Amino acid sequence: MTIVLGPNQYGKAENRVVRVYRDSARHEIRDVNVSTSLRGEFADAHLVGDQSRVLPTDTQKNTVYAYAKEKGLGQIEDYALGLARHFVDDVEPVRGARIEIDEYAWDRIEVDGRPHDHSFVRRGQETRTTIVTLDGKDAAQRAWVVSGLKDLVVLKSTGSEFHGYLTDPYTTLRETTDRVMATSLVARWRYIGTDVDWDASYAGIRSLLLTRFAQVHSLALQQTLWEMGKAVLEQHDRVAEIRFSAPNKHHFVVDLAPFGLDNPNEVFHADDRPYGLIQTTVLRDDAPDAGLAWYTVPAFA
Amino acid sequence: MTIVLGPNQYGKAENRVVRVYRDSARHEIRDVNVSTSLRGEFADAHLVGDQSRVLPTDTQKNTVYAYAKEKGLGQIEDYALGLARHFVDDVEPVRGARIEIDEYAWDRIEVDGRPHDHSFVRRGQETRTTIVTLDGKDAAQRAWVVSGLKDLVVLKSTGSEFHGYLTDPYTTLRETTDRVMATSLVARWRYIGTDVDWDASYAGIRSLLLTRFAQVHSLALQQTLWEMGKAVLEQHDRVAEIRFSAPNKHHFVVDLAPFGLDNPNEVFHADDRPYGLIQTTVLRDDAPDAGLAWYTVPAFA
Amino acid sequence: MTIVLGPNQYGKAENRVVRVYRDSARHEIRDVNVSTSLRGEFADAHLVGDQSRVLPTDTQKNTVYAYAKEKGLGQIEDYALGLARHFVDDVEPVRGARIEIDEYAWDRIEVDGRPHDHSFVRRGQETRTTIVTLDGKDAAQRAWVVSGLKDLVVLKSTGSEFHGYLTDPYTTLRETTDRVMATSLVARWRYIGTDVDWDASYAGIRSLLLTRFAQVHSLALQQTLWEMGKAVLEQHDRVAEIRFSAPNKHHFVVDLAPFGLDNPNEVFHADDRPYGLIQTTVLRDDAPDAGLAWYTVPAFA
Amino acid sequence: MTIVLGPNQYGKAENRVVRVYRDSARHEIRDVNVSTSLRGEFADAHLVGDQSRVLPTDTQKNTVYAYAKEKGLGQIEDYALGLARHFVDDVEPVRGARIEIDEYAWDRIEVDGRPHDHSFVRRGQETRTTIVTLDGKDAAQRAWVVSGLKDLVVLKSTGSEFHGYLTDPYTTLRETTDRVMATSLVARWRYIGTDVDWDASYAGIRSLLLTRFAQVHSLALQQTLWEMGKAVLEQHDRVAEIRFSAPNKHHFVVDLAPFGLDNPNEVFHADDRPYGLIQTTVLRDDAPDAGLAWYTVPAFA
Repeated sequence: MTIVLGPNQYGKAENRVVRVYRDSARHEIRDVNVSTSLRGEFADAHLVGDQSRVLPTDTQKNTVYAYAKEKGLGQIEDYALGLARHFVDDVEPVRGARIEIDEYAWDRIEVDGRPHDHSFVRRGQETRTTIVTLDGKDAAQRAWVVSGLKDLVVLKSTGSEFHGYLTDPYTTLRETTDRVMATSLVARWRYIGTDVDWDASYAGIRSLLLTRFAQVHSLALQQTLWEMGKAVLEQHDRVAEIRFSAPNKHHFVVDLAPFGLDNPNEVFHADDRPYGLIQTTVLRDDAPDAGLAWYTVPAFA
Repeated sequence: MTIVLGPNQYGKAENRVVRVYRDSARHEIRDVNVSTSLRGEFADAHLVGDQSRVLPTDTQKNTVYAYAKEKGLGQIEDYALGLARHFVDDVEPVRGARIEIDEYAWDRIEVDGRPHDHSFVRRGQETRTTIVTLDGKDAAQRAWVVSGLKDLVVLKSTGSEFHGYLTDPYTTLRETTDRVMATSLVARWRYIGTDVDWDASYAGIRSLLLTRFAQVHSLALQQTLWEMGKAVLEQHDRVAEIRFSAPNKHHFVVDLAPFGLDNPNEVFHADDRPYGLIQTTVLRDDAPDAGLAWYTVPAFA
Repeated sequence: MTIVLGPNQYGKAENRVVRVYRDSARHEIRDVNVSTSLRGEFADAHLVGDQSRVLPTDTQKNTVYAYAKEKGLGQIEDYALGLARHFVDDVEPVRGARIEIDEYAWDRIEVDGRPHDHSFVRRGQETRTTIVTLDGKDAAQRAWVVSGLKDLVVLKSTGSEFHGYLTDPYTTLRETTDRVMATSLVARWRYIGTDVDWDASYAGIRSLLLTRFAQVHSLALQQTLWEMGKAVLEQHDRVAEIRFSAPNKHHFVVDLAPFGLDNPNEVFHADDRPYGLIQTTVLRDDAPDAGLAWYTVPAFA
Repeated sequence: MTIVLGPNQYGKAENRVVRVYRDSARHEIRDVNVSTSLRGEFADAHLVGDQSRVLPTDTQKNTVYAYAKEKGLGQIEDYALGLARHFVDDVEPVRGARIEIDEYAWDRIEVDGRPHDHSFVRRGQETRTTIVTLDGKDAAQRAWVVSGLKDLVVLKSTGSEFHGYLTDPYTTLRETTDRVMATSLVARWRYIGTDVDWDASYAGIRSLLLTRFAQVHSLALQQTLWEMGKAVLEQHDRVAEIRFSAPNKHHFVVDLAPFGLDNPNEVFHADDRPYGLIQTTVLRDDAPDAGLAWYTVPAFA
């Protein structure tokens, strides 16, 4: 028996870059959280502590900040692709890179009905995300872009049912034809290729997810997610697949009968834990292979 | 020497009430986090474990949910006043009550350009707050309302200076006439009386805080807060005072010179800790006494 | 009517200082989170943006780190007192200072049964705290030390009752003579004077709090807190008062009857929200006046 | 082109079960957070909202609590295996299950030097984890157990170097032969088979990880992790592989020269973000195939 080094990667996580464009009096701002991971020929760093092939994470951090000036920080997918290509193409021992970015949106503050030139309020709501993975040198190089959003909290106060489910001796739940359905959505979609108008695509997909969530009369959160995903694939031909992770944020009808009160779905307790958790995938049957698009090392942490 | 019981209060914290109004197809929603605290004649519960004068926190929870139906949950200040009056007026040993509420705003989802009847997306951005304190029975009863907001994150990409400060042997900071200024604002304002249109007042004050943050050319965060507070007092005659707690969310200009790059306030690192923290008060010199409006037991935790 | 500046303070929050003593091969470590606040003649900074009397928070940060070397970082109360005295005594416009410190404990890693010289594992469990407040110059100067702990999570699996309480139309809770009682304790105690062996006092009080929590057969969390506080005051004559903030971390007996199972207090659901919250004070009736010991600006945030 | 349903799973996340054993006056306690996920024939729930093959997450929750009584909650791996087998064996449409458990340790409170019968203090420090995956019915059934720990925070105040690394035009880091090294360790190890004394194995591996962290004179965090993992595999023949996710919690030496002070690695700033992140695997070259041991749907969220 021999003990060997398995899959590994290293990088600098959560570089908090804020880029201000101030070419005119009307400033623009991009606010991101960037994590880099490099894969390659780093065995000696593990086995004998030899760092000669290791680009320090401090250097990766410097590069992240420098690129925000040198190459610019516009659409996060382009910025991530630029960083990934730099690490793989320009640093000899690096065979692959994974760049993960979260973006926080800002709105202009309105003053007397007009958007201000250089004062902003953070929008809150969802965080936009991208994960760019690059693998291989030169002609063998492949790239994958998985973009998405997280923490988009949505709720329907009616138009949601849950009944006809499987029962067993541990089942006590009552069926309902009218309940509150709420989730804090995580959605990640894998693009085909990299020739995409990322900002427009993001805006379109976000809008479609919200619209379908509203429109679908739901028989289960699973069904709603399927319909949301299907709509995205139908209308966005550069999207190969979309994955959802959706906690079922339970809103329990409070029993007010002891106090002589009816409660026809008007007063709810928003509970914390436990919560249902639905994770699912909608994809094209002719989608190109996912390759390393979803790959992480280790699988979770 | 004798050991005695000092100030005390007890209650049920963080009741997560969601109230849906569904009188028409166009639902309305209020989403709040309610904490109750009662003060009064509870010494025996401490000294000898006698609960006969203690209204259980479980009962307080029930009341919070029942009142959302029985009295309704509209403007949070009214709902809090109703709860406080109930506890003090209807429960004999209770001499005072403090009701604290956080409210999370929801927007309607837009479908084909029209707001949906019963599908919502959480707005994110700031949390609206109120703290209602009631003290005394019958004619001696007094009420205080302190409303506010927290987690309103704002940023100016220019229009902020910091120089001319006091120096000592531990000073290394360089002066600047152009910096990023950002904060995650907490503001709490104390009303005079309770005859207020709470929702309109909140909207007006929130808008004014944002406007003044944008307009004021800042020589220090202290100055900006003063100007924001002064504008609120000038335009809202029912506000006796306003208090701010404002972390200075530092955005440091990254030194890109080692990479041959200029950085004229374009690339920043948004740092986490430590952070400056400014806490201040703006008030009318003829404001009525604050009484118990700001009182907590213990002073902090 | 005139609008005026009210109470205010400013400082640098959450300086994360780690101090290693390495005078011998056996290193010592202190790991703290330090927040400074200064009070004084800072009106012009607010009213007209004049910083000439403002010591920058950046300088306060530098001082915190420098003092960890210059004066040393041993017992956190001494370190806080040193910082507070420096700011008030050495910086002319400063009239008062409040230094708040959290300390994280580390244990030595055991190797072959012996504690290692320079390898540590963070203990977890509670955080030790102190808040030192200094007010006034020269002979008029007064100091207060409030030390304590937070996040000490304790649980009794029996020996806790709750019954005989006040009921009203909103009461549904059932009485019990055997329940789980658990809390995540915050305790803060105010010392008389500053001539105290802080580390020994902390260890003694912590141990006493745990012991009394275990020993007292509880008729209510209020009673347990009273007994814990009383024991501290009886055995520590330098403690003037002690304040508690104690969430009642509810452990609900799960109803297993639908599955044909008894549940005699064996299986519980540990719930998150809402939770009972008890806040109380135990003090000596001849305790010196608290002065500014508990004072904050604003009262909360 | 056809749009199809891809990999999916659903379950009840974060069931907070506390199990008290009270067969004698000396109680025992297990405190866990259980998440269930089921895989199987659930396409109709997504595609047409037909729930007839879906066991509600509410039923899964009931089962988790009931099993803590019915089967007992001792070693978390056994409890998780019991739950997984129940779902796969007893619920017809279920083809696979993934049970993830976090366990929080409690110590007995010491009273007069003796451990108390029914009063406990939460240990803090690391959380013990397990992930049990079951796939297939009857003879085709396979099981994988991945146990581990997270949030084990360790620090070396010396005995760590970092130099000889690759440089490029973005490198500014200085080499060091003496630095603080600290991490908040996540480790997960995959067992061969299920015939293991889980508690003993956990204790042994935890101790070994700490010991090797202390003993290894480190040339890089990668090397330390490799040595820690190698020791585990050498001494625990039922462990097939171990994976680490280790943030490099940077402790920066503070420059005190402007204040006329030396700082020979005595005063550090413990920084938050960004941080290095090392993820790596150590495994036996003859380890059985990992199968679904590390599988999640989607890959991350």
